Amino acid sequence: MSDVGAHLVVVGTIFQTPTADRLEVLNDVVVSVDCDGVIVGVLAASSVEGQAAIAGATIVRRLSSTELLRPGLIDTHVHAPQWPQLGSGLDLPLEQWLFENTFPLEARYVDGDFAQRVWDDMVPCLLAHGTTTVVYYSSIHEEATLRLAKTCAEIGQRAFVGRVAMDHPEGTPPWYRDSDAVTAVSASARSIDAIRALSSSLVKPIITPRFVPACTDELLHGLAELAASTDVLAQTHCSESEWEHHYVMNRYGHSDTAALGKFGLLREGTVLAHGNHMSTDDFDRTREAAAGVAHCPLSNSYFANAVFPLARALRRGVKVGLGSDIAGGYQLGLLPQCANAVTSSRMLEDGVDPELSAGDRGAPDSRIDTVSAFHLATVGGSDLLGIPCGLLEPGRQFDAFVVDIGRQQSSLRIWKEVDDDARVFEKIVRLASPNDITSVWVAGRQVSGSLVSQN
Amino acid sequence: MSDVGAHLVVVGTIFQTPTADRLEVLNDVVVSVDCDGVIVGVLAASSVEGQAAIAGATIVRRLSSTELLRPGLIDTHVHAPQWPQLGSGLDLPLEQWLFENTFPLEARYVDGDFAQRVWDDMVPCLLAHGTTTVVYYSSIHEEATLRLAKTCAEIGQRAFVGRVAMDHPEGTPPWYRDSDAVTAVSASARSIDAIRALSSSLVKPIITPRFVPACTDELLHGLAELAASTDVLAQTHCSESEWEHHYVMNRYGHSDTAALGKFGLLREGTVLAHGNHMSTDDFDRTREAAAGVAHCPLSNSYFANAVFPLARALRRGVKVGLGSDIAGGYQLGLLPQCANAVTSSRMLEDGVDPELSAGDRGAPDSRIDTVSAFHLATVGGSDLLGIPCGLLEPGRQFDAFVVDIGRQQSSLRIWKEVDDDARVFEKIVRLASPNDITSVWVAGRQVSGSLVSQN
Repeated sequence: MSDVGAHLVVVGTIFQTPTADRLEVLNDVVVSVDCDGVIVGVLAASSVEGQAAIAGATIVRRLSSTELLRPGLIDTHVHAPQWPQLGSGLDLPLEQWLFENTFPLEARYVDGDFAQRVWDDMVPCLLAHGTTTVVYYSSIHEEATLRLAKTCAEIGQRAFVGRVAMDHPEGTPPWYRDSDAVTAVSASARSIDAIRALSSSLVKPIITPRFVPACTDELLHGLAELAASTDVLAQTHCSESEWEHHYVMNRYGHSDTAALGKFGLLREGTVLAHGNHMSTDDFDRTREAAAGVAHCPLSNSYFANAVFPLARALRRGVKVGLGSDIAGGYQLGLLPQCANAVTSSRMLEDGVDPELSAGDRGAPDSRIDTVSAFHLATVGGSDLLGIPCGLLEPGRQFDAFVVDIGRQQSSLRIWKEVDDDARVFEKIVRLASPNDITSVWVAGRQVSGSLVSQN
Repeated sequence: MSDVGAHLVVVGTIFQTPTADRLEVLNDVVVSVDCDGVIVGVLAASSVEGQAAIAGATIVRRLSSTELLRPGLIDTHVHAPQWPQLGSGLDLPLEQWLFENTFPLEARYVDGDFAQRVWDDMVPCLLAHGTTTVVYYSSIHEEATLRLAKTCAEIGQRAFVGRVAMDHPEGTPPWYRDSDAVTAVSASARSIDAIRALSSSLVKPIITPRFVPACTDELLHGLAELAASTDVLAQTHCSESEWEHHYVMNRYGHSDTAALGKFGLLREGTVLAHGNHMSTDDFDRTREAAAGVAHCPLSNSYFANAVFPLARALRRGVKVGLGSDIAGGYQLGLLPQCANAVTSSRMLEDGVDPELSAGDRGAPDSRIDTVSAFHLATVGGSDLLGIPCGLLEPGRQFDAFVVDIGRQQSSLRIWKEVDDDARVFEKIVRLASPNDITSVWVAGRQVSGSLVSQN
């Protein structure tokens, strides 16, 4: 290794979305990354500086003409313990699904070895999908939660890992809850300390009251104090379904965001999962707090009773990231969620019931496109979480993945007769699978895919 | 090869859906198939008869413990020439999408060699997804259409192949239309003869007026006469979008099904693509004619302005198959369409716009489940088309595929702690990809996947 020059350079073409309405294509550039994973330059490969960067680097990866470099995907909502039920058991309303399918599964994670088996399967799989950052709900168990954080740190996935706190005697089953609020806050505090003690630059704790119906007021209050005293981000579910939204309205006389605000949990970077039934006031409150929404379009089709009014939230200035909501959502990776976000936005715009007149069934100006969706999955998540990712530009972390658009065994096919850059971009969002993803890096370290050559 | 016994036996476990509400699991059976591809027995592998069937067969395929045998998928709506734009260019309303994206692409198929390149890529790819039967729209070109039929016959995909007829001076562009109705009917007649002359047991012609807006009355009348005189099935689009539905209402004062009925095109086995805006009268007319609907849930999210009221159509006794609608739908294979059919049925039931009250935005009793969706993709399509496929039982054709639920590089994961047969079935529908599909047979001939051993 030389004393000067970058740790890693990747030479090739970048596809990324600096804004919600712009696809940026940077052809034949050299991305230089230092030993801390920070991008220090994006230079034309044909330039003197670009050639010097290549010559000075320790590791050089030259992409082929069919490989495109993309910023890594940021999944702002994953329930890690639900991984084993991915794709199944979705036929119940949210409240029943929780008690009959999900809580029994999550209760298994009292067994740390079972948890480890799941984490060892899940983390590499999500990385292979190009998901470089994940905001995780773990279970209520401290050991399983710490093991998840360790697994992410060791394998190299950027992650926020939250021990789930839930103590409400009606909103949780007796066999899967924290025994009381004091115990719960203590467990969450220990979990934060334990994760911080890993001293990982990638993995951070996150305070995680499951949602209002599962938490007593004392717990919500205690966790807000913990967030303030530790300066740790928070996440919870917010106005997800008819049932959940009205439960909170009945309990407090106001909405989730108002309740969370009063407790002190609506803070900068608080991740509100779903938000389907949020009002304009809720959007304004969220924007003012610099909190944001994890939009989970597929999951919402099953459990939210409505489509999240994404375009309206964005116009209102709310920060929004995308989430797979494993395993309420049944697909891995965020490219399918980008596609689903577009699809559900079209369905919201046009409405669904043909027995209603066209003017009565839809919500005009709701549609987004694939560029906008990919922006949410990268820059949107990054802005919400306050992490320097989401774009491949100097000063940000090199979290990235490569899509090879030339593989034969793929649903993704490029036809030079019809495809320009914009269409290639669309095809990748809608059709690329993990088999098309040939390399993944987090903080400059390759964590999935083919090996790199040494300079 | 012995003189007695089956040509092929496959030994393993079958997952199939004989009715819309029943998953049938047949563990450790022997499926015997004769030289014509007809299933002659489904016997317990442990029985004397089962062992004799294995001993007498020419080709024996023993599935592993993680391989499950499924009836082949029947895609009732594919636009073959749109294959190169799969996944892209979906941001326009139907009528604009046709004129700006789709007709220019379809016009390229005047070049038979370009067509052949597309067919050679598409047919094997669809087979690899487990799609054993396809109902194809080709382009208006006789050569491209015949080449598609030949490609299916040679590679071994069961198919209905239709030269598209379209002559309306307003509903089609001057550079992509039949010059007049007489010319169009003659071309369709020649196309039928040419496909029949292939003498393929797998491939049949289908009469294909694109849709009412693209056809003059004279053409619709002529094609109906052609259908009656040749006894060939017909297909067209029906009440797909607000624009299309109202265009027909304005032109005739009644709906698509009424118009098609008056012309004589609503016949037994006529495949009506989409049908989103069909009324109860339309459903009744379709049932009485023994025609049916190709339901294309993903495409409908983009172009139909509403969700097809599937549950209502089924309750009304309408035959329904599933369709990918390549390339209005951007996903290959029918397993994703099964999943999408469930998702869109949930969205229709619950509604989409959270600003409407729950009671006003949805259509109650609209949801279906994965068993029902898979039934449509197999038995539903088979019944609609009048082909002996869709189930693995004696007397039907052995059109089948194998899903391996044990592959590591897959989104499909089985966890013995939580998965019973019903959940495995759900997971396969929602998560299996072509990489999980290890073998595909049509009419007893293996057409995709790993090789079989000889007895």
